[in-house]
Amino acid sequence: MTTTTERQPLNGVDTPTLFATLDAVREQPELARFQFRATNKWVSGTHNRSTMHTYYGAGQELEHKDATVVDADHPPVLVGNDNGPAPVEYVLAALAACLTSGLANIAAARGIELTEVESSVKGDIDLLGILGLSAGVRNGYEHIQVDFKIKGDAPEEKLREIVEQSRDRSAVYDVITNPVPVTLNVIAG
Amino acid sequence: MTTTTERQPLNGVDTPTLFATLDAVREQPELARFQFRATNKWVSGTHNRSTMHTYYGAGQELEHKDATVVDADHPPVLVGNDNGPAPVEYVLAALAACLTSGLANIAAARGIELTEVESSVKGDIDLLGILGLSAGVRNGYEHIQVDFKIKGDAPEEKLREIVEQSRDRSAVYDVITNPVPVTLNVIAG
Repeated sequence: MTTTTERQPLNGVDTPTLFATLDAVREQPELARFQFRATNKWVSGTHNRSTMHTYYGAGQELEHKDATVVDADHPPVLVGNDNGPAPVEYVLAALAACLTSGLANIAAARGIELTEVESSVKGDIDLLGILGLSAGVRNGYEHIQVDFKIKGDAPEEKLREIVEQSRDRSAVYDVITNPVPVTLNVIAG
Repeated sequence: MTTTTERQPLNGVDTPTLFATLDAVREQPELARFQFRATNKWVSGTHNRSTMHTYYGAGQELEHKDATVVDADHPPVLVGNDNGPAPVEYVLAALAACLTSGLANIAAARGIELTEVESSVKGDIDLLGILGLSAGVRNGYEHIQVDFKIKGDAPEEKLREIVEQSRDRSAVYDVITNPVPVTLNVIAG
């Protein structure tokens, strides 16, 4: 474990650029305004396909070097054709990914070298809600359990703190644990 | 548009089996208890990889016919290497997918044939939150806008109602617009 003032690339994180970016945003806070996007096309039945490509941020229209296309479907037991994970599964993957991306940055900023990070996310859901069979059951997850294994050159307590700090600064964790207003607009016919 | 008692396969949805499934769950509500899962492995920097494969539901351990593996990363402007969408983008894809899967089922159940369904989801986020640069800014999306285009053999108002009914029964919409309790467990060292 190096000092917290260490600013060399670590864990694959370009920490000098990370700190420079933080300084730039501090000077010009409007650079922090982002818009992320996904588009979706219905294929057949419960099978559909999403694309993630363009976004806005740092004052400009941007795009990922590659468009990412993912399929979703309901599983056979829910009368789908299993052409991809269920939509709710992507939420769990997003949570694991957000916490992991964040903790890599935080570890690098603190000069801690990571050797291994794995996680599993489990979401319990009672489908009586979405099936409209019980008014008292919510549509979404009742509870989500996240389990992390993290290894690196710091005491256990410091490694645990990194994961907790990542949770405290996680966009997806916030979206799941707190309400986000959603507006729905439909053009029909 | 056929009658609402129509129970032939429609829109690629096996409506007879859908209704039979609803009847089975009505008889045996514990079949509706599901657990969805994702696992994640850190690759390097903010790049990591999630897998969605096994799940529990209808009283048994199950798995998708294929494991789905998705990469996430931060974009270059956020000092990542752009090896995949940002984690928060998967949340938007999940929302579009959930609403689309749901509306295909609802349309089939109502005997409405769909010809085209497309959607776009945009999430506005101020990264001053996750960057720890402003205590008053949340980590997650401030607002999400969903735009649907839906075409089929029903009046505009009926098509719009299908999308709205899907929203009212959407697991991902609920997860985003209402709080879900999340427990985090860390094994370090």
